This record gives sequence, C-alpha cells and structure tokens, in this order.
Amino acid sequence: MIAVVQRVYESFGFVPLETPTIENLTTLLGKYGPEGDQLLYRLLHRREKLQRALEASADERGLADEGLRYDLTVPLARVVANYKDLPTFYKRYQIQPVWRADRPARGRFREFYQCDVDVMGTQSLVAEAEVCGAVATVLRELGFADFRIHVNHRELLRAFVAGAGIDLANESLALIALDKLDKVGRDGVLEELGQKGIEPAAGERLLDNLAAAREPGAFERLEGAESLRELFAIAANGPAADHLVFDPTLARGLSYYTGPIFEITCEGLAGSLGGGGRYDDLIGMFGKQKVPAVGFSLGLERVLLVMEERSMFPDLGVGPEVLLCRMKEVAAGDAVRIATALRERGVRVEVFADAPQLKKQLQYANGLGCPYAAVLGENELRAGTIALKNLTSGEQVVVTVDGAVERIRSRA
Amino acid sequence: MIAVVQRVYESFGFVPLETPTIENLTTLLGKYGPEGDQLLYRLLHRREKLQRALEASADERGLADEGLRYDLTVPLARVVANYKDLPTFYKRYQIQPVWRADRPARGRFREFYQCDVDVMGTQSLVAEAEVCGAVATVLRELGFADFRIHVNHRELLRAFVAGAGIDLANESLALIALDKLDKVGRDGVLEELGQKGIEPAAGERLLDNLAAAREPGAFERLEGAESLRELFAIAANGPAADHLVFDPTLARGLSYYTGPIFEITCEGLAGSLGGGGRYDDLIGMFGKQKVPAVGFSLGLERVLLVMEERSMFPDLGVGPEVLLCRMKEVAAGDAVRIATALRERGVRVEVFADAPQLKKQLQYANGLGCPYAAVLGENELRAGTIALKNLTSGEQVVVTVDGAVERIRSRA
Repeated sequence: MIAVVQRVYESFGFVPLETPTIENLTTLLGKYGPEGDQLLYRLLHRREKLQRALEASADERGLADEGLRYDLTVPLARVVANYKDLPTFYKRYQIQPVWRADRPARGRFREFYQCDVDVMGTQSLVAEAEVCGAVATVLRELGFADFRIHVNHRELLRAFVAGAGIDLANESLALIALDKLDKVGRDGVLEELGQKGIEPAAGERLLDNLAAAREPGAFERLEGAESLRELFAIAANGPAADHLVFDPTLARGLSYYTGPIFEITCEGLAGSLGGGGRYDDLIGMFGKQKVPAVGFSLGLERVLLVMEERSMFPDLGVGPEVLLCRMKEVAAGDAVRIATALRERGVRVEVFADAPQLKKQLQYANGLGCPYAAVLGENELRAGTIALKNLTSGEQVVVTVDGAVERIRSRA
Repeated sequence: MIAVVQRVYESFGFVPLETPTIENLTTLLGKYGPEGDQLLYRLLHRREKLQRALEASADERGLADEGLRYDLTVPLARVVANYKDLPTFYKRYQIQPVWRADRPARGRFREFYQCDVDVMGTQSLVAEAEVCGAVATVLRELGFADFRIHVNHRELLRAFVAGAGIDLANESLALIALDKLDKVGRDGVLEELGQKGIEPAAGERLLDNLAAAREPGAFERLEGAESLRELFAIAANGPAADHLVFDPTLARGLSYYTGPIFEITCEGLAGSLGGGGRYDDLIGMFGKQKVPAVGFSLGLERVLLVMEERSMFPDLGVGPEVLLCRMKEVAAGDAVRIATALRERGVRVEVFADAPQLKKQLQYANGLGCPYAAVLGENELRAGTIALKNLTSGEQVVVTVDGAVERIRSRA
C-alpha cells in the first residue's frame, strides 16, 4: 500500500517529507481541541531537569515539554513557518506514524500511519480538487470502487449553527457534538448539545436544517454553498468525480479547519478511511506570515483492515522463492556460493543454516510456504548443478543455476 | 536507500516485520548496559495514573512504565519469545526508527533509522555469513566499494581479558572502556580502565596482547579463534568475502552479545555504518525457551551522510516532470482533466492552482527545477492539444497528450 501511495502522490507532483517523532508540546497543544490535548503522549524529563522538576513538586506541565507527533498536519505547519526556502506552492506528501493515547478498538490503534498530501500557498479550489483526486486515485488503484468522499464547509456549518439560533461562542462545542452523529445518533447529539448548555429547540432546529440540506436537489439551491459547488465542478474532471458527496452533517473533530472539509467512508467500516480539509490559519500560528493550506490524510491501517476483510491483497512477493538445502557432506561455503549466484540473478533464496536429514529440511520448506526447494549434494556440486524440486507439483529436475532461475521465474 | 535495503534483504529470504514504537520499560531496561538505560525516552503517565504517582511523590521509575524503542533487536527478541507460531528459523528484516536521548553530533541523531536483518533458531555460522552477506550486498548495490566489516568474538575477548589478569567480574566494564578505543585512543582506554579499578599493568597487558593479535598472520595461529576462522571460510564464498577483517580490539557497547560481533567502517566517517553480532541469551530473557540468534544492523542516516558527501546519489525521480499552466480564460476543471490524462499515462504532473500571468507561472516552474511546462490556452483546448515547453532547451511544441507523454519520456 505504501508503494502505491508514494507512486500516486508523486504522480500528482507532491514531494516527500519526513518530520521528527518528537515535537515541543508548545507546538502540539491547543491545535486539536481539548480532547486532542488529553490524548498527547508526553516525554518525561531526564536527569537534572527531572531532578529539578521533582524538587519543585511539578505537575504534568512541569514534568515534560516534549511529546509525540499527534498528526502530520501540525508538524508540517511548523516546518512551513520555519523554513523560508520552500517553494511558494509547496506540495508535500508524508507517510509516517502518529500516536494518540486513546482507547484502542477495531481499526483504531495508539500508533498508526497517516498518508498525507497537502498543498500550501493557495486559496484556489484546484488545490482541494487535487488532494481529493490524489486520495481517490490511491483507493481506486488499491481496488476500491465503492468509497464516498463526504464534503462540507466550515463556513456553511457556521451559518447553520447561527441560523439555528445557537450563539457562535458555542460553535466549536456544537461541532464536536455534531461530529459524533454517526456514532451516537440524533438523540445522542441532542443530549450532548443539551449538556453543553445549548437550548433543546436550537439543537433540534440545527439537526432538522442539516437533514433538509441533505435532501436530493437541496445542495444545488443551498445559499452559501457556492464555493462547494465550484469545487464539485472542478473535481468532476478528475478521479474523485464519482466519489464526492455533499454531506451537511460532516463536522470533523479537529479545531484547525477553516474551509472545505472531507471524510472518506466505505461499506462495512464504522468510522472513516481518512479525512482532511482547508486550514488557512494554522501556519500563521507558528510564524508571522499567514499561509493558506489544504490537505487530505489516508489512514493506512483502516484501509488495510478493509482490504484484508475483502481479500483484496495480491501476492505480496515477499518470502523466499527457494529454500537451499544441502546434504551433510557438502560444505556450508558451497551453499553460500550457490545462493549468491541465484540471488545475483534476482531470485529470493533462503539457505538452510544447518544440514540435518534432508527430510527435515524439506518439511521446513513446505511449512514456510516456499514454492521450491533446491538440494545440493556431492554429485550436483561436482557437476555444477542443483536438484530443483517444485514443492507444489513434487516434480524434481537436475539443472544448472541458470536453468533453475528460468524454472523459478516461470513457476515451472 | 530503503528500496535497495528491502530488495536485497528479501533476496536473502528475510521477511518484513514492524514492531510498536512504545515498549514496556521492563522490556527495555537492563538490555543495553547502564549507559543505554540512561538514554531511554520514558513516556509520562497520564490522567489518574499520573495523579496517583504525583500524590505518592513518585520518582522517575514511578512516573513512567513505557518508553520508546532503543533498537530493533530487543523488540524482536520480545516478539520471538511471545509468538509461538513463527517459523523455527525465523529470518526477519526491519526498517524503523529508534530513539536515544543522546547528545546529537555529525551523523548522530536522537531519532534515526536502523535497517536490521536477524536469523533466529540456529547456532550455525551460516547465519553469521548470511547477515554479513546481506549488509555487504546492500552497501555494494548503493555504490560502496571500500567498506570493512570488522569481526571479533565475545568469547575471544573474554579470553584476552582473563589472560591479561583482569577479574572476569570486571569483564563488561573492560569491554565498555575498550569500545571507546577508536574515539579516545590507547591512553584514554587505560585511564578509564584505571578509573574502574583495574590494575594499570593488567590494562596495558590487555591492549598489548590485542595489538599483537592484530599483526599479519596472527589470526591464522590464534588460539580460540577456530570458529571465527570457519566463519571467514564460509563467508569467502559470498558478497562479504573481500570486506571481512579480523579486529581483536572490536568490543561493541551493547551488553547482550554472546558470540561473533561485527562493525562496519569506511573512510572519512568516524564511527560505524552499522554493527551486529550473536546474542544467544536475549530471547530467553523474555520467555522460557532459549533461542540462539544473530543479526546485523545498518544505520540509515550514517550511510546517507557518506553517500551525500561522496555525491553517490542517482536521480531520485521525485518532483513533478511537468508544471501544467493555464491562461486565465481556461477553466480550472479543464486543467484537472488534462493533468488526469497525463498522470494516467505515468507522468508526474503539478497543476498550477491559480491562473496569474503566464510569465509568473513559468518562473515558478523554473524555480522548481521542473524539466517541462505545459501551457493550456483556449486554442489548445479547442484543438485537443497542449503547448509543451522544454525548460532546459527553451523549445516549445504544440502536441497531443500522447505526443507530450512521448517527449517527456524521452526528455526531448
């Protein structure tokens, strides 16, 4: 999957970046909302610094000032703010793990890989269309046909919140509640809105208005949705075309989004395969200059989970093709020499390290699921040949190294 | 480099493994020696657990029970001890970062990648020969010719320590001092040995005897070096042949080695490109069963550092091949459509997101180091063509999408 992601992201002109696992907590805190701050892993001070903190009876804040990367977007924003020699329209991709001290569940791990693409420096909706096109191409190349890219806009959501009579001071509380609609349902969202002090009637109005905007034909007439309609028109020319759906209830949990937001779903998976959106204010938090940006992130383990359940994996081409066995009268060095010759010709070879009874060696080859075993005896050694056994058919032939390579390549 | 390492390690029959970043401190502590324990990153407890620790005025041990992976060998040993369904002769490779809270220096980072191969389950020296062959093949394929794989044996070292009259209770202290010979020289090692309470005359004898064992012809006659001589004889048939050198002063810092040990050096780099050795007792520390094992680790950043200094990198084939520009009368969707067609044919394309003056767009393409720019105007759009400009030669031609692909492929 990583090889496909790399190739596709590069075909869209994105260039690779890796950032450090460890970031300053000042960089991470306050970017993901209060729930995110809670889920950060913090690195305990060491040596003198720890000693001083313990003597001062420090609390959590005094015991650590570094933490583990929580996503790839905030580190990217820090990098873009700090490095002035990046291209004006920096398009980077990044495939690295992130860490969240959350409760693990199916497809939800404390350490997981994100595969991100981001475009910096432009407010053009072409950037949104391109990041949607890139992740859609990845999923299509992996064999997915039925995924949907849900699209909404933070400003549109704000208009719905205001329109329902909710004070905009409570906007982010309302979005955090709305973000759980898939998980807890309408009643669950209404309950959380109530707990946060939002008037029940206003909560009902918000959900009703959002549901109405989801009706067929509503998107085309919806006021304030002009830029989303333009995005759909641009993306209609690319690989995301058949996958984009307007979803007025999509909220996204992270607090840094400012414009269009995205989330990918597919049948049989609660939660999403990935998500993203525009965050025009984040980079400005790390430097003087405000730089508009938009990105999309695929969750590697989520995608793999669905691929595994649907048996979508091709032959991965790992594991030895031949187990090289030898009779005990053959020197280990001769086995290494023959293995080297096979490997130089592109064959994946495991050398059986010891030389017990041949039967034992062949049993091991069968257990490994290796397609061939090669046996080296004194006669073969003298004649410059090996006995090659196809472990599926049971057929055995005596061939030269080149002959063996040919048979292995054609799986004969 | 990672792609080369993967291909070569797989050609030796190794299969991939990834392990979690976070390990229990009980797994990590006591495996790397006292200096290693000091360099572990520890993760601060969270929520109630932290609260309880603070109320109990806990120290470093009470504030954390998890840490970051310090190498790839100890996590592998834990995995092999815990998972009973692995092959008897498990050959795995692993390419992942590790973390050490050390003072950074040239080629020495707090986060760095290791590229490990390990063979489990056999005491045969074929395993040593194979891991040496695998790393030698990687370095040769990357273009290295002048590297040396220094080889020694922990039991041979023990015999030297005892033979110099040093109490074997001080063996590991003596090896930690000896490990710094390259860095601090003979006098520095003698000083550290003295500080650790080893009699000066014994320290002198140890270094004299080791130096004598390094003289030409000494290895062939050296008592206790039988198995190393056998290893050299086996490896002589493989890719490590011309690179192995016996080095009786090689000690290795890590405490878990029990047999042959390795370290790779090359001209112009203080320190090593990688190292390894046999560790027959480590897996037994995590389970009931003792499993012999041997491995080798390449340091990715060290290798890259030397490759960069020697200008050994080929064209990496990343970054867009074409910047797709458009006149402002052309719709963004048309640019996305043409870009999609080029990408489907294997070309790496960046779409200029906005449509400022063409001059600005071409300036940007030149700044990116992009070999081509493609310009989309109303005329081209109507005719189903694009204007393709070679930014090196300045030549511009009007061609179809397929024509453009052909020219880009041949760099015409």
